[in-house]
Amino acid sequence: MYMYDLIMKKRDGNVLSEKEIREMVSEYVEGNIPDYQMSAMLMAIYFKGMNSQETFVLTDAMAHSGDIVDLSAIQGIKIDKHSTGGVGDKTTLIISPIVASYGVKVAKMSGRGLGHTGGTIDKLEAIPNMKTTLTQKEFFDVVNKAGFSVIGQSGNLAPCDKKLYALRDVTATVDSIPLIASSIMSKKLAAGSDCILLDVKTGSGAFMKTLDGSIELSKAMVDIGERSGKRTVALITDMDIPLGNNIGNSLEVIEAVDVLLGKGAKDLTDVCIELSANMLYLAQKGDLDKCRQMAIDAIKNKSAYEYLKKMVSLQGGDISVIENTDNFEKSKIIYEVKSTESGYISKMNTQQIGLCSSHLGAGRMTKDSPIDYSAGIILSKKVGDYVNKGDVLAKFYTNDENCINSVEQNYIKALQFSEDKPKEEKLVLARIEKDNITKF
Amino acid sequence: MYMYDLIMKKRDGNVLSEKEIREMVSEYVEGNIPDYQMSAMLMAIYFKGMNSQETFVLTDAMAHSGDIVDLSAIQGIKIDKHSTGGVGDKTTLIISPIVASYGVKVAKMSGRGLGHTGGTIDKLEAIPNMKTTLTQKEFFDVVNKAGFSVIGQSGNLAPCDKKLYALRDVTATVDSIPLIASSIMSKKLAAGSDCILLDVKTGSGAFMKTLDGSIELSKAMVDIGERSGKRTVALITDMDIPLGNNIGNSLEVIEAVDVLLGKGAKDLTDVCIELSANMLYLAQKGDLDKCRQMAIDAIKNKSAYEYLKKMVSLQGGDISVIENTDNFEKSKIIYEVKSTESGYISKMNTQQIGLCSSHLGAGRMTKDSPIDYSAGIILSKKVGDYVNKGDVLAKFYTNDENCINSVEQNYIKALQFSEDKPKEEKLVLARIEKDNITKF
Repeated sequence: MYMYDLIMKKRDGNVLSEKEIREMVSEYVEGNIPDYQMSAMLMAIYFKGMNSQETFVLTDAMAHSGDIVDLSAIQGIKIDKHSTGGVGDKTTLIISPIVASYGVKVAKMSGRGLGHTGGTIDKLEAIPNMKTTLTQKEFFDVVNKAGFSVIGQSGNLAPCDKKLYALRDVTATVDSIPLIASSIMSKKLAAGSDCILLDVKTGSGAFMKTLDGSIELSKAMVDIGERSGKRTVALITDMDIPLGNNIGNSLEVIEAVDVLLGKGAKDLTDVCIELSANMLYLAQKGDLDKCRQMAIDAIKNKSAYEYLKKMVSLQGGDISVIENTDNFEKSKIIYEVKSTESGYISKMNTQQIGLCSSHLGAGRMTKDSPIDYSAGIILSKKVGDYVNKGDVLAKFYTNDENCINSVEQNYIKALQFSEDKPKEEKLVLARIEKDNITKF
Repeated sequence: MYMYDLIMKKRDGNVLSEKEIREMVSEYVEGNIPDYQMSAMLMAIYFKGMNSQETFVLTDAMAHSGDIVDLSAIQGIKIDKHSTGGVGDKTTLIISPIVASYGVKVAKMSGRGLGHTGGTIDKLEAIPNMKTTLTQKEFFDVVNKAGFSVIGQSGNLAPCDKKLYALRDVTATVDSIPLIASSIMSKKLAAGSDCILLDVKTGSGAFMKTLDGSIELSKAMVDIGERSGKRTVALITDMDIPLGNNIGNSLEVIEAVDVLLGKGAKDLTDVCIELSANMLYLAQKGDLDKCRQMAIDAIKNKSAYEYLKKMVSLQGGDISVIENTDNFEKSKIIYEVKSTESGYISKMNTQQIGLCSSHLGAGRMTKDSPIDYSAGIILSKKVGDYVNKGDVLAKFYTNDENCINSVEQNYIKALQFSEDKPKEEKLVLARIEKDNITKF
């Protein structure tokens, strides 16, 4: 009755040993521990938590439950970046070429969107002919030549996480810091990079709704990274409003190109410079101030833009849409959402706005839904902007005229107005490196 | 995702509605809720508990998941008694004929022993030819004629409890007051009596080790009984030492007969009088003092003894062993355990002593092990007795000479000695009736 004893031990608030955790993971993957025992364990962990050592061992065991990617065929320092997911988050397309332009390699596997969040692979596939499935050799070749590559998940990475996540998803045991941290980090450890930058989103459009929760999660993940011998930093960034102005797949590629050409939205540009600076810092290119200037320079001198074109071209994509984003296929309908009241926008329910974009065709509500790459939203007004009745709040891009009315209603409902100009929120709220937590 | 919402609701400490609990029980019994979701729910209940109303509804839904026994063919007030299980607990064989002698009916289904505890059915089967499986008509006939009958579990009583208990048993979710209370009481509600007396054992030989835990469990069970319209009382009785002197099947029948003949051990006799008095009280035969005297009288005038003989005879048993207990077949070996030290016995690990009896042949370690009805232990010295080195502590009855050495070592290890006479413990520690808790 081995698993029984472990459940009771955790239920009673005791610490599981390294041997116990590793055996539990391997026996679970082998199918020797039934789901009904594991779900009781997960609920016990939900209530009693895990200390740093337990969380690290769980993560490491999960990482080693499948393949560990060997990136040694790629020259230089390899850095991975993970975002906990948000609305309008196209940062990967911007920061990867920035750091690549300084010889820091990014060999990234990324996911698809589901529900209100987008996925980088969907965004890349908005570029005509772009390949997101490569052999390992092709993948490494692109990284060596373009400095970075982004492909879909492949191989058998952390199968224990897949199995555990599916179980957590149906047993209300997702919201547990050690379980979230081990799930994210097991895949990062298996992906084989030397350093990891974590972009932990916080706010109404994020998985973590509060700053305190985001800091706790960040500390747990940074700790796992460092215990694994990987330099790791977490930035906590705001997801109380969508990042940048464009939501939707080709619309987000267009905005990413705009940023790399120095004409992007200020909030998105600023966040990307901070993320890039921290990646360069992790790759030991200098102190944060120096790295920040390097990121700014890579935009100013367009070198990052050239790295993006190189990568798109090497993955078979049509670079004419990068050279001139007007070449992207446009949606048939562009619909202007007009304000029914006057005042400052004081709040945006970002999750709702992400869902609006999905419903216009940009996202998928189930794993196998098709995607309309041209669909999405361009925000004309965001939190802090003053709006007169009748002003355009946003433009909807869609090929489905039937959805517009209901999406418009939901969009309007997602906004709050006030007479006073709301306080400007910081874009980067905190930074966690080893034991140092800096709140901004 | 209905069950998911319920798990989350309970996980977050909220109260489940009557509709939610009833649907959960019926869907679980139907097999529409998988075990991995139910085990997460059970662990959430372990941590967050259930209020009285939730616990009652859960119990009632579990009771109604199978047959509800209709006892209306039995005349008079029907009373059920449940013991949470102990070592040397032969009270059912004593108190049932006592109350039956006053026209209070006991139609009882009972279980078999497992591990360190015995079961009333095994004890009855130590009587040659005794039938413990009767048709419903035969069962009711015996109750109507002898005032009581005890048979093995039959019919499809509370199948949800069977399924839930099996799951709790492997997921470390047994030790939860609302889950224990609902498990016990669902079977009592289904068994159809008008009143219920609960004998909640507390101490080293019992499931509940502390008085506080026992009181909490008792309160929960009494509350369920009263909400179900059944007069219910709980007595909390001591199981820090075995009850009476005899442990083992025929040895316990012999001791029960001794009590009914007025020559039984004082502790066992006193507890049986309290239990009987409370059963008579529940059957509204008078106040507790009057009922206590009635119980004493039923022993003194041997009427209870006559009711036992009548019941044994009606169930096919050989009453010659009741008329003269020397007629029970004796074990081949009677081994005297002698003390290796002098002093007062200050503690007995009752669970260990129960296991000793089982290992001598009296019990079963797995569901299908055979039983030696003649095997067991007669205690010569108990807590509070002074012992000289070489004095007989107990007599082992067994047909298996190979086990004696190791059982003797375990028996000696189960005893603690001290120089000072230990404080005498009360036999009945508390009584719970409705909201009244009386500690003695």
